[in-house]
Amino acid sequence: MLIGIDIGGTSTKIGLVDSGKVVASKRIPTSGHADEFAFADALAEAARQLTTDNGQLATAIGIGAPNANQLTGIIEMAPNLPWKNDIPLAQMVQERTGIRSVLGNDANAAALGEWRYGAGQGLNDLLLVTLGTGVGSGFIVNGQLVLGNAGNAGELGHMTIVIDGRDCTCGRKGCLEAYMSIRGLRRTYLELDGDPEVLKEEGVHCIAKAAEAGDAAALQTFRHAARWLGVGLANAVAVTGPARVVLFGGIARSGDLLMMPLQERFQEFLLNIYHGRVDLVTSALPEDDAAILGAAALTTM
Amino acid sequence: MLIGIDIGGTSTKIGLVDSGKVVASKRIPTSGHADEFAFADALAEAARQLTTDNGQLATAIGIGAPNANQLTGIIEMAPNLPWKNDIPLAQMVQERTGIRSVLGNDANAAALGEWRYGAGQGLNDLLLVTLGTGVGSGFIVNGQLVLGNAGNAGELGHMTIVIDGRDCTCGRKGCLEAYMSIRGLRRTYLELDGDPEVLKEEGVHCIAKAAEAGDAAALQTFRHAARWLGVGLANAVAVTGPARVVLFGGIARSGDLLMMPLQERFQEFLLNIYHGRVDLVTSALPEDDAAILGAAALTTM
Repeated sequence: MLIGIDIGGTSTKIGLVDSGKVVASKRIPTSGHADEFAFADALAEAARQLTTDNGQLATAIGIGAPNANQLTGIIEMAPNLPWKNDIPLAQMVQERTGIRSVLGNDANAAALGEWRYGAGQGLNDLLLVTLGTGVGSGFIVNGQLVLGNAGNAGELGHMTIVIDGRDCTCGRKGCLEAYMSIRGLRRTYLELDGDPEVLKEEGVHCIAKAAEAGDAAALQTFRHAARWLGVGLANAVAVTGPARVVLFGGIARSGDLLMMPLQERFQEFLLNIYHGRVDLVTSALPEDDAAILGAAALTTM
Repeated sequence: MLIGIDIGGTSTKIGLVDSGKVVASKRIPTSGHADEFAFADALAEAARQLTTDNGQLATAIGIGAPNANQLTGIIEMAPNLPWKNDIPLAQMVQERTGIRSVLGNDANAAALGEWRYGAGQGLNDLLLVTLGTGVGSGFIVNGQLVLGNAGNAGELGHMTIVIDGRDCTCGRKGCLEAYMSIRGLRRTYLELDGDPEVLKEEGVHCIAKAAEAGDAAALQTFRHAARWLGVGLANAVAVTGPARVVLFGGIARSGDLLMMPLQERFQEFLLNIYHGRVDLVTSALPEDDAAILGAAALTTM
């Protein structure tokens, strides 16, 4: 029995995981706590309640968070979380619960979740890409998660795909994330003279709805996105040669609008030696549980 | 005592390697043999002579070749070698010599050579990039060579760095190799209105000589190259997070002409979280022996 904790910008999910299934879960707000110590207290209390209410003992706690460094167990200056300093959250949770606790980057957690329980099972070489507020990635190579020398490998979202291209939130230009994040797709829609009314709703679902209703700019938005993402994925394949690429997160659930042009572009940008040796699929994990399963999978490394 | 064999387009070097040093070597032509069997016979005979002449026994043979697949031991339809079919060279050499033989991609061999004996010693995460007729790469991740699912990982030369950019020999457009190979640099020089007389000499040394004599187009050629290579290297770092990037091969020996603008561009294109955590150097192996050492290092995996 494992506990998986997924820390998001607004809320944090805590789940009890048994054999790749979330058997119980709860949610607490990420912000609004007095400080990071109070947040760690709240996490520990939620974990205690979950195990007590279900009459279970947990052997390990996995925590997935943005800007988390698995080598150090520290959340490093996360721009989208309430605390701006470095938070050694693995140690803080372990001290409060007495249970072994592992902290990891949320995209790496998603990669491990997909690898242990989802579309990556049985593969030694896998690439998972998360498409949402940001673009993240986790690489499995030779049956191991790639952490890199300083624990910060797997930043496919900050691969430059257009030299001197769009400004990115990282301060550089032309990153994949500047095109393939929620913000990026919305910008593309406006650049294609899309209807600003459509964007009164947040996210990209509004663009998908417009596309399904025949909005030409919305359809084009997904075709352009497929081209940029196709380049980024093919470039990543040329580095690690995975057997499968899995897309994860809100934008990946846009269905055929994205996946049909993307499959075509991905093949087009793929070096010929990889043809027939890598496929491109969407996450096989249930939407609500995927992040918890991924966090729990951090403990199995 | 190991034997390293480096198969190039025109000649093949065979060397006896002891503790990271080439103690004796010889060279045979790659082409001109009746068929691949005759070539394997010649390799086995050269290996036998080297060990006999030096009164040594070799415990293993490592063979580096373009388009070699380490997982299968086969040279797969190499465009720059005399044989157009698939050649199971590891097995052919092993049968003829009775010595365990390992075949690997030449860029992977270079990466292993640099890792065991050169600028990558002691590092768990390393990237080696070869700059020459083609652009190749070998990635060490978690202390292991990255082969990928089908044995063909590490094709940084075919990462798309300019969408819809220059035609590449692979049939696609905008690959790093189309800009950073010998052919690519020569093309850049012409596009910058360089003097066609300079290119009457082969290779890029002629452009370097012109640059040193103050030729503006030649100087610009290296600055443009630094920009494209800077993007490609920074993109690769964002995937595997190596502690060091090592440049290898003829173009890497252009000295400050390339390295001064490259160090600047590399930092510029590098995501901030990698600053100070990865450095960029040129090969620390002696030029003539590097490929033999790399091939020998294939046997130590």
